[in-house]
Amino acid sequence: MDAGIEFVKGHGTENDFVLLPDPAGELELTQSRVRALCDRHRGLGADGVLRAVRGTHVTDAPAGTSPDEWFMDYRNADGTIAEMCGNGVRVFARYLVEAGLVAGSEFRIGSRSGPRSVRVHDGGSVTVGMGAVRVGAQSTVSVEGQAFDGITVDVGNPHLACVNDLPVEQLDLTVPPGHDPMAFPHGVNVEFVNLLAPGAVRMRVHERGVGETRSCGTGTVAAVAAALQANGQRTGTLDVEVPGGRVRVAVTADGSTLTGPAVLVARGRLDAAWWREH
Amino acid sequence: MDAGIEFVKGHGTENDFVLLPDPAGELELTQSRVRALCDRHRGLGADGVLRAVRGTHVTDAPAGTSPDEWFMDYRNADGTIAEMCGNGVRVFARYLVEAGLVAGSEFRIGSRSGPRSVRVHDGGSVTVGMGAVRVGAQSTVSVEGQAFDGITVDVGNPHLACVNDLPVEQLDLTVPPGHDPMAFPHGVNVEFVNLLAPGAVRMRVHERGVGETRSCGTGTVAAVAAALQANGQRTGTLDVEVPGGRVRVAVTADGSTLTGPAVLVARGRLDAAWWREH
Repeated sequence: MDAGIEFVKGHGTENDFVLLPDPAGELELTQSRVRALCDRHRGLGADGVLRAVRGTHVTDAPAGTSPDEWFMDYRNADGTIAEMCGNGVRVFARYLVEAGLVAGSEFRIGSRSGPRSVRVHDGGSVTVGMGAVRVGAQSTVSVEGQAFDGITVDVGNPHLACVNDLPVEQLDLTVPPGHDPMAFPHGVNVEFVNLLAPGAVRMRVHERGVGETRSCGTGTVAAVAAALQANGQRTGTLDVEVPGGRVRVAVTADGSTLTGPAVLVARGRLDAAWWREH
Repeated sequence: MDAGIEFVKGHGTENDFVLLPDPAGELELTQSRVRALCDRHRGLGADGVLRAVRGTHVTDAPAGTSPDEWFMDYRNADGTIAEMCGNGVRVFARYLVEAGLVAGSEFRIGSRSGPRSVRVHDGGSVTVGMGAVRVGAQSTVSVEGQAFDGITVDVGNPHLACVNDLPVEQLDLTVPPGHDPMAFPHGVNVEFVNLLAPGAVRMRVHERGVGETRSCGTGTVAAVAAALQANGQRTGTLDVEVPGGRVRVAVTADGSTLTGPAVLVARGRLDAAWWREH
């Protein structure tokens, strides 16, 4: 095996990623290669690919991206471009620190939804600024013929967070929850949330176009916003148990933060012949 | 990340493995670590682990294992020990050649079911000696209430290979096929086989205790033995299309060989902290 493309594999609450260091923006990261990388039998396997590139080399970076900052070029497993990923950005931040590519433990990461502030803690957990949270109207979804009331939460993408007493472990989420197409013409991410005492919630999430996942960063923020509202609060901090682990979400008057684990599993090189053939 | 445990990731017809080079038998490969390695979100993800160790360091190696030959210590994804894997041994053989650990392209690999002869071809495909094939009595399985006649084939493990005209693409194998518990008290691997003209068959397989897989090495040998018998032959060579790709099986009077692809995807090191924590 000749020297191939460098990679790092990591996960945040079991949402897993292949990270490709590419400081000078030289990698030819085609849709076909992203799909092959994420394929769990033919490739390394992941929910998505994070390309680590200096902002100056990203032609479609949004306004405000600094030329020198590290930009997270995020791709879904199907090869499409995505804007942000609250779990991926933690893995990205921890990689930058472990690889010695940033000074200190607080810095900015560029993304297609704008720069994000991150802080890498001792022990490896990471806090990420998740931006403004807008709580909106009520709506209803159905699971196996049963109706669940929820509130719409905009965290850059649309959510319906349903706080109720039915233990989330009992839900069958193999079929997408039925939603109101007038309220969500482009689909919606749906969270089912149980309040646990004190200061904690348990959540399962169905992501639009994906299915149930072990974790969803923006979904945990939506779940906490809805749980706070159910308790008559607009701001506060709650722990969120998801199937893939546990995170902490703080909602403030002007924004939100997500704190959770970021695990680096392995690093190495993709076989050069394999890369060429895909 | 400090220097961690060396690994190679590869697959044969989409049956994928994490290979751990361990020439001196020093790795502490616990059941917990195998499960974590094979976990497709928390680890690297694989169907199994192949530890590459010199025969002299394997305390439970069968009689006939040479001290100097490379022994394939194979573990299932659940951490249990398995005897052989027709797809894994191809990846193992190709790794030994690419890493310069064997002289020449024909050599022997030790396994818990005894040593296997392998030959690594230019281009990366590998031929493996699969041992004797014993065709036995007829039996019947049911899928969605429909009965399928097959013949029992012993390739070191029990198979029921069902040659018929119903296109295998149409089968629902999410539920294990119902088998005769008197004929197979310990369960059975079931192959559904269509004859394609000329010299080829198409197959899907349900592995006992696992479910449908993209490929099964001994299953392809059983399918070819049954297809040859359906054609009035006892020996011959056929191509086998499986969901994960294509292999070639030769059945001779005293044995069988399996030839198929072996792809090395990546190599690197597992994070030392991750290894310690699992």
